[in-house]
Amino acid sequence: MRLREAALIGTGHIGGSLMLALRREGVIDESRGYDRDPAAAARAVERGIIDYALPSAVAAAAGASLVVIATPVGSIADVARALAAAGAPAPGALVIDVGSVKGGLVDEVERALADGARFVGCHPLAGREHTGPDAADADLFRDRPCLLTPTPRTDPTALADAIALWTAVGARPETMDADAHDALVALSSHLPHVASFALAAALDGAVDERAATAVKRLGGGSLHDGTRVAASDAAMWRDILLGNRERLLPLVARLAAEVAVLSDAIERSDGEALSAAIARARRGRSRLSGR
Amino acid sequence: MRLREAALIGTGHIGGSLMLALRREGVIDESRGYDRDPAAAARAVERGIIDYALPSAVAAAAGASLVVIATPVGSIADVARALAAAGAPAPGALVIDVGSVKGGLVDEVERALADGARFVGCHPLAGREHTGPDAADADLFRDRPCLLTPTPRTDPTALADAIALWTAVGARPETMDADAHDALVALSSHLPHVASFALAAALDGAVDERAATAVKRLGGGSLHDGTRVAASDAAMWRDILLGNRERLLPLVARLAAEVAVLSDAIERSDGEALSAAIARARRGRSRLSGR
Repeated sequence: MRLREAALIGTGHIGGSLMLALRREGVIDESRGYDRDPAAAARAVERGIIDYALPSAVAAAAGASLVVIATPVGSIADVARALAAAGAPAPGALVIDVGSVKGGLVDEVERALADGARFVGCHPLAGREHTGPDAADADLFRDRPCLLTPTPRTDPTALADAIALWTAVGARPETMDADAHDALVALSSHLPHVASFALAAALDGAVDERAATAVKRLGGGSLHDGTRVAASDAAMWRDILLGNRERLLPLVARLAAEVAVLSDAIERSDGEALSAAIARARRGRSRLSGR
Repeated sequence: MRLREAALIGTGHIGGSLMLALRREGVIDESRGYDRDPAAAARAVERGIIDYALPSAVAAAAGASLVVIATPVGSIADVARALAAAGAPAPGALVIDVGSVKGGLVDEVERALADGARFVGCHPLAGREHTGPDAADADLFRDRPCLLTPTPRTDPTALADAIALWTAVGARPETMDADAHDALVALSSHLPHVASFALAAALDGAVDERAATAVKRLGGGSLHDGTRVAASDAAMWRDILLGNRERLLPLVARLAAEVAVLSDAIERSDGEALSAAIARARRGRSRLSGR
């Protein structure tokens, strides 16, 4: 496939990685972008993610044959509405997002855009905890799943183009209902992030500088792995957790209940209850992690 | 250094790795062992961890110049008392453990053994989530810290021998007060394990087989890393968490409080509170993880 001019709205880790990969694979000839943070946009130009920065999302999207909305989830619909109000994107342009929540949002964006049928909700399962254009990596999507959430209104040629686009950058696209997507990622990503945030925040509150230095020097793999994604961007994750609120709340309640079970068992020195909780954890790990 | 005959009580991941490493480095000539689980002991012989298995800890320790107690933490003092009651280990033998909790336990073992001064509490910060003799790895300790917790009663030559032993297998030994050790590992390892157990158990309870299959196929790095140590041995971790109960309980309370903060913020759709909690998590990650 070949698209001439691409527009990137939000020049961060995921959007930046996609532009680098699309350029390397020759899918796009030119790209321009907009970021709310002018320093990020300038850095994206320096890194070759975009050829030049424009002063608004509308200016970046005007005339583009591909528009990638790569802002935090909470802003995607606003961006779509702003584009539509200004008569962008051009008729026939493919519009995708890369957000981690899809239910509700996909409908909202479809309704906002004049040609909503050419919008395809996309979620590459490839993000890392790094943020910003400096973390952009053309190999980020290689062999990673990318979930596409078309609706009955989606133009089949737009869907085919989106599939070809993700295939070109090495991803394994597959389609899924938006609600099924949100249920899946609540389990596979959003709850693990909540657990990591809680652990890292608890540790932050528990240590003075002396203890922090010792832990940093001697801490093991469990601390490192358990807090890895706590380095993620706060605004991005605020939007994701709120965007998937309904799915996530009962899972967070389960997490709280399991912490309480472990705490009670430790408090009562109840080895049997503790072993049983750890055994359930082992079973969960074995059922859910494929690596 | 050179020790003739080594005895391994508990032929699992850590003890097995130490024997393999000591043999490879020529520190020991011969080793025999005992495991409560005869199949594990037989497997340890097959893997060359021990030359032969004996029917009791006492039989294994008799006449050995090095005794390594590598059972779950809750059994270490019992093993020491059983050895002492039978007149083992031999006078002058070096006795070490490899347990993850030290406060109280070190005193108990010192008091139990006839020559308690030749006991040195050791904790290599090198375990992984794998268990049993099959997970033994002669390279496990390379460049990893090993915390030694001598007391005022510890024989200086026994401490020097223990330091030489860990140095020989590539570890970086350092000495530390037993209580300081327990405070450190509560933060750097025990609370991260509790968080991982809670996450994995919560996920286990939340998914039917269909969802589990989808998550296993598509789940990302946050799930994998967050649940990694939930694959750990239940009996071993039951003992560790109970053994460090006093240090751990206030930390688990902090973890529960942070889960509650996140849950409340999501429930109330309070973006500001959510961002603040994630920002504290980011700070904790940055202060505490050195990798």
